[in-house]
Amino acid sequence: MLTKIPKEAYTERIARIQEHLQKNAISGLLVTNTYNIFYTTGLFHFPNERPVVLFVPASGESILFVPVMELAEAKHATIFQDIRDYFEYPGVVHPIDWMISSIKHTYPNLVQVSIDGGSRELFLRVKELIAPTSLSVNTLIHELRLTKDPYEVELLRSAGYYSDYIVKRGTEVATPGMSELEMLQTISGDTLNKMIEDLGEVVYVPGGPAGGLVPSGLRTAMPHALPSAKRMEKGETLILSCGANVGGYRAECERTCFIGDVSAEQAKVLEVMATAQQMAIEAMRPGNKCSDIDAIALDYIRKAGYGQYLLHRTGHGKGLEEHEAPWIEVGDHTILRPGMVLSSEPGIYIEEFSGFRHSDTIIVTDDEPLVVTQFPKTLDQLIIKA
Amino acid sequence: MLTKIPKEAYTERIARIQEHLQKNAISGLLVTNTYNIFYTTGLFHFPNERPVVLFVPASGESILFVPVMELAEAKHATIFQDIRDYFEYPGVVHPIDWMISSIKHTYPNLVQVSIDGGSRELFLRVKELIAPTSLSVNTLIHELRLTKDPYEVELLRSAGYYSDYIVKRGTEVATPGMSELEMLQTISGDTLNKMIEDLGEVVYVPGGPAGGLVPSGLRTAMPHALPSAKRMEKGETLILSCGANVGGYRAECERTCFIGDVSAEQAKVLEVMATAQQMAIEAMRPGNKCSDIDAIALDYIRKAGYGQYLLHRTGHGKGLEEHEAPWIEVGDHTILRPGMVLSSEPGIYIEEFSGFRHSDTIIVTDDEPLVVTQFPKTLDQLIIKA
Repeated sequence: MLTKIPKEAYTERIARIQEHLQKNAISGLLVTNTYNIFYTTGLFHFPNERPVVLFVPASGESILFVPVMELAEAKHATIFQDIRDYFEYPGVVHPIDWMISSIKHTYPNLVQVSIDGGSRELFLRVKELIAPTSLSVNTLIHELRLTKDPYEVELLRSAGYYSDYIVKRGTEVATPGMSELEMLQTISGDTLNKMIEDLGEVVYVPGGPAGGLVPSGLRTAMPHALPSAKRMEKGETLILSCGANVGGYRAECERTCFIGDVSAEQAKVLEVMATAQQMAIEAMRPGNKCSDIDAIALDYIRKAGYGQYLLHRTGHGKGLEEHEAPWIEVGDHTILRPGMVLSSEPGIYIEEFSGFRHSDTIIVTDDEPLVVTQFPKTLDQLIIKA
Repeated sequence: MLTKIPKEAYTERIARIQEHLQKNAISGLLVTNTYNIFYTTGLFHFPNERPVVLFVPASGESILFVPVMELAEAKHATIFQDIRDYFEYPGVVHPIDWMISSIKHTYPNLVQVSIDGGSRELFLRVKELIAPTSLSVNTLIHELRLTKDPYEVELLRSAGYYSDYIVKRGTEVATPGMSELEMLQTISGDTLNKMIEDLGEVVYVPGGPAGGLVPSGLRTAMPHALPSAKRMEKGETLILSCGANVGGYRAECERTCFIGDVSAEQAKVLEVMATAQQMAIEAMRPGNKCSDIDAIALDYIRKAGYGQYLLHRTGHGKGLEEHEAPWIEVGDHTILRPGMVLSSEPGIYIEEFSGFRHSDTIIVTDDEPLVVTQFPKTLDQLIIKA
């Protein structure tokens, strides 16, 4: 089973960037964003004050800059021959100053340089150092990340599998009296153990390789209810809002369940949400517009009389980040293309009663939408014996 | 026991900001950084694409802008009367555009506005929208955060207590054959349960309320070895690199331990590291310079013959962020003041042998350095029975 993007894919990614740079007469691209670094190098690092930067020249060899602390991992994990390290942050010479001077030394004839975004402070610092060469912002890597290649799709399918697994464990262990924190520890621990056993290695992205939110009762009416000491009770709603990460790629599976029993009112609202969620999934096809898909799901909920209980859009893109473009929202008119990966997760939140939200992870294909999360959604399978 | 900053402290913080704005003829400050928002409002939110912004005018009432999803929590957790919500990101009107227009409507006579940093994109967007009013970057809140008030000190002491607790649990449960992942799950779970029991509530900051890294054997020679399936063995080094967060404030306690037995060579290097670590702690007094403290610890290690095994600085500031200014590093000449909070954690990393690092969290006071982490460091207490 594929556990990470193979090294040859990074060679290909760098080649695509270089092709773009040549076509646009840009001398080189500075990659500074943590997820863009992961996308171009395979090196994951927790974003902090110590900069990791990749310089891709229009032609010639790329240079990867890392703190010495990351040097061994950078040599082991990446394809780059030219890895240069600095000791620490902030340094007598700031790491960014050293990097730019180091780049100019190797590539003295830069005409125009691009950077992939970042803080205003970083931009101004680089602009001053790189002068008289001009500096521009370039969103190429963010654009490349919008559609996933076959390796990325395979990792996302695997992440979908473990997202299903953690939800399944939730339905198995849930019992009246169990706290949300106990629940989360148990199911994320079990899933992590299974991932280690199956895959041999996991990537410790922020949030961990497997986890989620598991609110029960009235707390389900808060979309982002963080794990608490609240104990679940019979008859309550339990939202298992879970996800897993394989090789850096994140999927999510969320299911609205019921402890022991479900009331007619709970079942009714569930049905409205679930229908809207399925309508959005069905619409996740090439050529469709994000804003239209959002309208399909949310308008269905509005027409069913629950418009006042909407607290968020229908969904968002997924990949290296838990939330990334495109957005299944009224203001995003992106037209879907094969390889885009989306969540479908409209929610209905009725204060002092209950919240209702399923989420699946969907890959847009030339054919049917590929739903990588498969945990059942029929009402009887969502009722947890208690 | 104090579990979070009391509401009156936020009134005081806003008053200090307003005083600064008046003194500097700035009409208002836009607070956009996640930790600065927490510092000024008490509202914690996971940083993502949905902006949360506080506008503090030089005089008059502050306005807190949140996505509707955070509205209930914002009303509950903050002192602000004027909380305005938007539906979603990106929106037909971008949330930032709507906020600036909303601010201009309430405060039509702005002369100069400041912002607390952020991306270049955000700065340019605000600059254009706020025109003809000028926009500048203002680091006041980062400066206020450098020294901690008595409430913050109390929370940090409590965070130190739980940091000790998680290390103690590590020494109690460690046994040959246990994997790093099992270890981490057990001790972070136990500590979280204790925190919930003692404190009633926890803040789910990124990284969780209690956790850390627990490498054993050769993996201890990597400063940031993420939890793995590696099983610990008798005679190996085990680094319990742990931390806890109370009310948003983070402490860390790290101890280099030995499973069952310690070799003469392990004991010798431990002694060098531990002496350097203690020398840095002793030097954490008002008037001393960060770079000098770094030199005290690292030069001691160099003189003992281990300079080639240094991979990082002596320490860093702590508070709302795990790493924050000031830096106990050669390039940071900040002079310590009472209320600054620092880690002391010089490390020695010998590849194919072992790593050695203790860390404590220290508060600079007018008197002796206040070490909020107290887990023992004598050799016999670091040997885990096995």
